Amino acid sequence: MILDGKHIAATIRAELREQIEALKAQGKRVPKLAVVIVGHNPASETYVNNKIKACAEVGIDAQKIALEQTVTEQQLLARVRQLNEDPSVDGFIVQLPLPEHITETTILSAIDYRKDVDGLTPENVGRTIQGQPSLVSATPRGIRELLARYAIQTEGKHVVVVGRSNIVGKPIAMLLMQRPYLSLPSMSAASLGDATVTVCHSKTRDLASICRTADIIIVAAGSPKLLTADMIKEGATVIDVGINRVDGHLVGDVDFEHVAPKAAYITPVPGGVGPMTIVSLLQNTLQAYNEYTR
Amino acid sequence: MILDGKHIAATIRAELREQIEALKAQGKRVPKLAVVIVGHNPASETYVNNKIKACAEVGIDAQKIALEQTVTEQQLLARVRQLNEDPSVDGFIVQLPLPEHITETTILSAIDYRKDVDGLTPENVGRTIQGQPSLVSATPRGIRELLARYAIQTEGKHVVVVGRSNIVGKPIAMLLMQRPYLSLPSMSAASLGDATVTVCHSKTRDLASICRTADIIIVAAGSPKLLTADMIKEGATVIDVGINRVDGHLVGDVDFEHVAPKAAYITPVPGGVGPMTIVSLLQNTLQAYNEYTR
Repeated sequence: MILDGKHIAATIRAELREQIEALKAQGKRVPKLAVVIVGHNPASETYVNNKIKACAEVGIDAQKIALEQTVTEQQLLARVRQLNEDPSVDGFIVQLPLPEHITETTILSAIDYRKDVDGLTPENVGRTIQGQPSLVSATPRGIRELLARYAIQTEGKHVVVVGRSNIVGKPIAMLLMQRPYLSLPSMSAASLGDATVTVCHSKTRDLASICRTADIIIVAAGSPKLLTADMIKEGATVIDVGINRVDGHLVGDVDFEHVAPKAAYITPVPGGVGPMTIVSLLQNTLQAYNEYTR
Repeated sequence: MILDGKHIAATIRAELREQIEALKAQGKRVPKLAVVIVGHNPASETYVNNKIKACAEVGIDAQKIALEQTVTEQQLLARVRQLNEDPSVDGFIVQLPLPEHITETTILSAIDYRKDVDGLTPENVGRTIQGQPSLVSATPRGIRELLARYAIQTEGKHVVVVGRSNIVGKPIAMLLMQRPYLSLPSMSAASLGDATVTVCHSKTRDLASICRTADIIIVAAGSPKLLTADMIKEGATVIDVGINRVDGHLVGDVDFEHVAPKAAYITPVPGGVGPMTIVSLLQNTLQAYNEYTR
């Protein structure tokens, strides 16, 4: 069965639209996201414009803050602190990458975790690990939501995560291993967490045999068609986080054509995890509004 | 071979003493640790006194701050903020547990991560996960040091962690899976990290067969003799974090008598991980002094 991220993302957008309409009907202000972009990287411009368009679709106020490539770290820090203080802004993101003269970790660490809707501050990562209320970064949140919407149980399952990045591998591993104490308002009743989790990466020996023990495999390695049909067991759930461009086509980290017939559930690329990530940003903005700034 | 935590801890204390003597010889001030204790829990009193004694042994200045059981959360928060600001204090800890009328996470979150020598703030946990410089909590730091001192390589090894607590299971899993970019000044050349890591817990199915695939097993489950000889493969390294009192004796989470003959390396209880934890606190205090407050 295909895990249709595009469809689920559309459903969630409709739910968000409804919730924000309800706020308006009650005479309340709507949530507001600010997006800081530095310089004129065309890919970044596209990402930022897509995020702003997605906000508009659900009724979230969006503000684009465009700064010149020459902005100093001090000036950018000052802008971040202003946004931290601005009561009209519920959440904001600083689009990466930043120019080389600016240290990304310095900027990210300065964001108030309550407005950190990208979930990239150490404080939010730590809170996630400790099972405290937190804003979870887009991709792990999207994967969790996708599993929940299809009522795929994780308790006692063996989850193998391929890839140990700070923004996907490590946080999704943490979320799925811990007690399911994070009930998400926007989620179905599926209990997520309580899985036995193995994290693999470039230094892992005999990746294939580890993957064959998995009930659920999440591949976020950035390596086209890394996961082949002989590497999964019959009936596994396969989540493909990869987005690779090969001969002008988008392909994932999974050899979809041959893996899909063996898998119980599988995400396509495109149309699987991808559409869930922007919607996660919208959900985080509403969550920040509800929990912290309203 | 026995991993002799008691001996290694004594070696590290001697090294610390030497480093602090060198500071004095240069006319510099010595590092200072403050320990906040609330109320009169006898176990807490013992722990605190042991920590202060350990500081004295290596020449770290230690200050005990004893507050009454009736202190309010606001008063304790104010004390924490005072310690954050106090330039003469390099690190401090708030001994847990706190009285029921005080929320532990509120207090811990208020500690400046640069002085958080217990490594329990979300900020430090997040920084550890992200591979940024951080103060790692006592037990994971102690385990890492013990592995390093015995030059036990972890690259490409399969590490199974039994237990998913915030203070042991999750952080040691993170430290051992990530790229070994944290070089510790006090460490031997062993490269730690780059392991394939599986985290098991109470919901894990067929724990025994997972443990049998491990090159290194770290048991932090709080369950006496949980790990038996049939659950390890010949030549595995076994780290026992358990401290259980059974019939008046201390026993670990490992059935030492029967597991030891099959293991290449194993920690005893007592005398294994335990002595490493207090020494980690001393190391963290010196690290805070060197990196942040000197």
